[in-house]
Amino acid sequence: MGCVQSFREICDRQKNTNVRFSLPAVCFVWQTAMIILFGIFIRYNEESSPRWKEYRREKNISSDIENDFYFRYPSFQDVHVMIFVGFGFLMTFLKRYSFGAVGFNFLIAAFGLQWALLMQGWFHSLDYTDGKIKIGIENLINADFCVAGCLIAYGAVLGKVSPVQLLVLTLFGITLFAVEEYIILDLIHARDAGGSMVIHTFGGYYGLAISWMLYRPNLDQSGRLQGSVYHSDVFAMIGTLFLWMFWPSFNSAITDHGDGQHRAAINTYLALASTVLTTVAISSLFQKHGKLDMVHIQNSTLAGGVAVGTAAEFMLMPYGSLIVGFCCGIISTLGYIYISPFMEKYLKIQDTCGIHNLHALPGVIGGIVGAITAAAASESVYGHEGLLNTFDFEGEFKDMVPTRQGGHQAAGMCVAICFGVGGGIIVGCILRLPIWGDPADDNCFDDECYWEVPQEEADIPPVLQYNNHMQNKDVVESNFTMEQN
Amino acid sequence: MGCVQSFREICDRQKNTNVRFSLPAVCFVWQTAMIILFGIFIRYNEESSPRWKEYRREKNISSDIENDFYFRYPSFQDVHVMIFVGFGFLMTFLKRYSFGAVGFNFLIAAFGLQWALLMQGWFHSLDYTDGKIKIGIENLINADFCVAGCLIAYGAVLGKVSPVQLLVLTLFGITLFAVEEYIILDLIHARDAGGSMVIHTFGGYYGLAISWMLYRPNLDQSGRLQGSVYHSDVFAMIGTLFLWMFWPSFNSAITDHGDGQHRAAINTYLALASTVLTTVAISSLFQKHGKLDMVHIQNSTLAGGVAVGTAAEFMLMPYGSLIVGFCCGIISTLGYIYISPFMEKYLKIQDTCGIHNLHALPGVIGGIVGAITAAAASESVYGHEGLLNTFDFEGEFKDMVPTRQGGHQAAGMCVAICFGVGGGIIVGCILRLPIWGDPADDNCFDDECYWEVPQEEADIPPVLQYNNHMQNKDVVESNFTMEQN
Amino acid sequence: MGCVQSFREICDRQKNTNVRFSLPAVCFVWQTAMIILFGIFIRYNEESSPRWKEYRREKNISSDIENDFYFRYPSFQDVHVMIFVGFGFLMTFLKRYSFGAVGFNFLIAAFGLQWALLMQGWFHSLDYTDGKIKIGIENLINADFCVAGCLIAYGAVLGKVSPVQLLVLTLFGITLFAVEEYIILDLIHARDAGGSMVIHTFGGYYGLAISWMLYRPNLDQSGRLQGSVYHSDVFAMIGTLFLWMFWPSFNSAITDHGDGQHRAAINTYLALASTVLTTVAISSLFQKHGKLDMVHIQNSTLAGGVAVGTAAEFMLMPYGSLIVGFCCGIISTLGYIYISPFMEKYLKIQDTCGIHNLHALPGVIGGIVGAITAAAASESVYGHEGLLNTFDFEGEFKDMVPTRQGGHQAAGMCVAICFGVGGGIIVGCILRLPIWGDPADDNCFDDECYWEVPQEEADIPPVLQYNNHMQNKDVVESNFTMEQN
Repeated sequence: MGCVQSFREICDRQKNTNVRFSLPAVCFVWQTAMIILFGIFIRYNEESSPRWKEYRREKNISSDIENDFYFRYPSFQDVHVMIFVGFGFLMTFLKRYSFGAVGFNFLIAAFGLQWALLMQGWFHSLDYTDGKIKIGIENLINADFCVAGCLIAYGAVLGKVSPVQLLVLTLFGITLFAVEEYIILDLIHARDAGGSMVIHTFGGYYGLAISWMLYRPNLDQSGRLQGSVYHSDVFAMIGTLFLWMFWPSFNSAITDHGDGQHRAAINTYLALASTVLTTVAISSLFQKHGKLDMVHIQNSTLAGGVAVGTAAEFMLMPYGSLIVGFCCGIISTLGYIYISPFMEKYLKIQDTCGIHNLHALPGVIGGIVGAITAAAASESVYGHEGLLNTFDFEGEFKDMVPTRQGGHQAAGMCVAICFGVGGGIIVGCILRLPIWGDPADDNCFDDECYWEVPQEEADIPPVLQYNNHMQNKDVVESNFTMEQN
Repeated sequence: MGCVQSFREICDRQKNTNVRFSLPAVCFVWQTAMIILFGIFIRYNEESSPRWKEYRREKNISSDIENDFYFRYPSFQDVHVMIFVGFGFLMTFLKRYSFGAVGFNFLIAAFGLQWALLMQGWFHSLDYTDGKIKIGIENLINADFCVAGCLIAYGAVLGKVSPVQLLVLTLFGITLFAVEEYIILDLIHARDAGGSMVIHTFGGYYGLAISWMLYRPNLDQSGRLQGSVYHSDVFAMIGTLFLWMFWPSFNSAITDHGDGQHRAAINTYLALASTVLTTVAISSLFQKHGKLDMVHIQNSTLAGGVAVGTAAEFMLMPYGSLIVGFCCGIISTLGYIYISPFMEKYLKIQDTCGIHNLHALPGVIGGIVGAITAAAASESVYGHEGLLNTFDFEGEFKDMVPTRQGGHQAAGMCVAICFGVGGGIIVGCILRLPIWGDPADDNCFDDECYWEVPQEEADIPPVLQYNNHMQNKDVVESNFTMEQN
Repeated sequence: MGCVQSFREICDRQKNTNVRFSLPAVCFVWQTAMIILFGIFIRYNEESSPRWKEYRREKNISSDIENDFYFRYPSFQDVHVMIFVGFGFLMTFLKRYSFGAVGFNFLIAAFGLQWALLMQGWFHSLDYTDGKIKIGIENLINADFCVAGCLIAYGAVLGKVSPVQLLVLTLFGITLFAVEEYIILDLIHARDAGGSMVIHTFGGYYGLAISWMLYRPNLDQSGRLQGSVYHSDVFAMIGTLFLWMFWPSFNSAITDHGDGQHRAAINTYLALASTVLTTVAISSLFQKHGKLDMVHIQNSTLAGGVAVGTAAEFMLMPYGSLIVGFCCGIISTLGYIYISPFMEKYLKIQDTCGIHNLHALPGVIGGIVGAITAAAASESVYGHEGLLNTFDFEGEFKDMVPTRQGGHQAAGMCVAICFGVGGGIIVGCILRLPIWGDPADDNCFDDECYWEVPQEEADIPPVLQYNNHMQNKDVVESNFTMEQN
């Protein structure tokens, strides 16, 4: 701890938020690298290649509509909206950091998805005959998923880092994600369609560990900017609602064709509905006068979607989904009320968006729910064929049984946490280097650091504002007239 | 009337908007009830169960893509967006009630869809072999539809009721909806794919009757908060546009596979386009200086979608759709200009969002259009098979003829109105009880009652604001500099 | 030039923005004309008619899911969102023109799509057996595409024209569009799935030519209104993101079933991702202190989608898409920094939204990329069947070869530019007539001209505001209390 402390002190020099050379340099170099790597590695798969018609005949596929595109494209677009509008607008709640929220979210997602196509491609879609990664719609969805992990981490450090740091966070985040995903899904053979473990737990702990490494003892110097204003809260609700509405698509996007996608959508739909009611209940109950807190409505209502991520494709049953949502609404809201202040005060983890309560904790719950549901699976419920299909008991795992699968699920959970915490600490160390252009403690949560912000009349003190108004005589006169009426 | 009046007086005691115990209590108890009822009654249907593959083979279905999920999921997601973003943001136009608009919309929709799955399930999806309700994607769409009826009613009482009242309104609204829907669609055998009658007419009159029961003679005490501000009008346009764009999905979501969905989408697309032009025309014509009124653009542009709800799947013909939209744009806008003030003044119905002009009246028109189109149907236009499929002339209705179907449509219309008005009066009585925590007359349309609202600098009177600014010297100085340039 | 100048002077009389009679008149007359023309010409096609089931049997189509509706409806809805929310909100960035941006966008799109169904129908979907236009989902998508051309043109004249002028612009724009599209796609046999040439190049130059004809030397009199405010920039990001996210649907909406749609979506997805990084890089590099400019992020990030429009369905290869996006991000952002000021100062083209940099220039690049990619096509890459399908080498073009196709693509490009510039000059002449109710030079970019704008407290000068506050004593007192704490 002492070592960490002294490392921190070394890094806290005079801050300079000018990223005029570092940001363009990183963008150009990395994008050029992407082009080269894509040129070497990435090709279309059979379903997106002009030879699809021949492939169709070979495989005896009767119609173009059976191209995977038509199974997954609607879900893909919903997931895409969640990544860019959902995550982006959810973070616009701060009064003067909406540009950074939605703009940097845009930047790192756009970079991340390219890198994810490569990283995940090497692990999952490499065609060993020619050494190329063959991509189709499912790869795009997985790339968006991978990006989601990094955007979750962004939530923890929102307003406290520079865009260059975010790009570094994303580069390492995607890399770690692809590795842990490979270990969890392929080596351990855990199932995790909606990514409770792979995405949310990993992303959550990754972000929290980074935030812990970047702890700012004097962050209260930016306290004036740390709240919301009326309209920024409404903007954030755009993010919340698009996440909430499209979560069934998120959890069902890469599940099995047919009943797999169908069931995952239903379970997620129900879990989320249940979460809303318990979130409202707890928010009102724990506030003086019973008033609702926008922070809870914006965030905790989504916890149920996180927590059914793993089990959504299993026979969780409709009431099971409601129960998971019920519990997560309570736990997540209590997290905002009790755990977040505790973590900031005692654990030195400053979590701007409360990702611990929205992603990390519900993700862990989701992993546990998934393990239990898997362990409880039986042929009487799933049918023989259904059980094999749902849990993918084939190939080297053809002798797997549900109870052991439950153990594997739990093992996957642990891997996700380890990668999140471990990776976050290492990346956090890197991000503490005094070269990234991050803002000073009294300058956090302020778009002025990295954006040309339009000057508004409300920014000018009233005396000047009045003079200013006098110059626009028309406006003033019409107002006087209005007053007299 | 005298009786109603005195009942009103009894109920108007000192108002207390603290819902700290009632709101959590209702949420917890009802959500727990949902879990229990779902545990007893709700199961997956064949298409969302792991036995789907076996079912496919049995029924000789050649591909997973013929799972109903792929026919309806894109439409479902569009409807879902309409319910949560469309209705939610449409109501954000008030200057200080955006939290309540979008937040309570969220709450009651999330509760309503659970209760709707049960209520509609008992009537429509009960499997008599095991007494379970078997749900799939179509049930989710129907649940969203059912919720729409209650959200319409919310529009009439927006800003004047507590969240607890809204939950009660929803509980009864969903129940009434399921019953009237069963009577209209199953017993009377009316067709109503887009719900002109079942959703909009019922929801509209239900809300208006409740608003009439909750009449507040001194509502002008909240007059300062009853308008919009510039940005709240822009937020409301988000709601308008998502409703407008996705209405073709709404009207086609549960119509027949193939041509049914295709035709319903085309008709709705056209009717809505036509409505926009006549709305703009009337809005400009009836305003001094020809300026457009945002209230009309936000609301009346949608009336065409309501009015083709019933007939969208019939052979309304493209020009027929345009004519319906043409008329509804005119009628709805004139409604906002003349009927709403009349209703408030003489009928004592305060209709915050003007749902009479957007839902009730166009819904009735839609019912009439549906009845006429059905009565005019012929084999020469539909083809023999097409006529049977479109109007579902089979089973006990296999001897039905189009003219009689027209009569049944009209009968359905009457049932919807009766359920709306009757149900609204009863529920309105219940909501007048002085136990629900509704706001006082001078406190309506104010988020302060039920939400922790962030303090904004603009709320502070200028003298204080100036001092406040002086504390942030940097800001002030930079502004001075700017002024001098 | 002298002639144009004197014509301009004749037209610059006293401005009167009252459109109380002209706007309703145009709306009513045109909408009535639409109804009559639809009555004469427009009918459902086989896939949306009740005779679909018979047609299916005739054509041996095995399932309802092969109705074109299911191939294209999800893409259609995404395109629809781009037209109404994407374009509408992208233009809300001006501080006091958000109503006009989103409202007039709504109006002209709603009119334009009806007229487009007719114009495009006459050229492409006319059934010569009965003289009727048979419409289905693909016609709706094409109508939306056609509208996009006019909305692009609106971007150039945003804030400087009346709604009546916009309707005239749209009427002629749609007409010109349908003709040039017929020439380019049918006569010249160029391929242009995503409309780089047909939509963006044409729309861009059409708008620029109109803006040149409507040049206002004293536009700086409205300078106070020409910037953005903080929240208007956030609103504009809603438009940006929905355009960005759904662009893969735009470029793939009318490509071939199966691999065509699949590949177009992948290419667009990649090009757009790449554009974001180079836009950020250039924006930061060319700004003092390296701060990002919202104008660039809102607009230039989309240039990659425009530029792969033509080639998206070809074998552009994933790395090719990245390269196109890379270049367009740079060029478009530099366009905003250097070309737009140059055009305004020296070419007398005032381009409010910078459509030259977002549509015209990237559109031309897209045409060139398309021509090169087509010319480079070979059977070894596409396969024999793939080549024929992708480039539609059949019927009278069955002897076409890729190199010649490249030439045809380039020819198509020239036609698009000529139609844009030529049509824009003619329509610009018409719009200069002093009868359209356009605003005076000191009144541009102001919603007050055409909208009832709500009065806001911030509009009232501070002294009055203070008194105003004093009337709401509660508020003031609570603030005092807050201050003392």
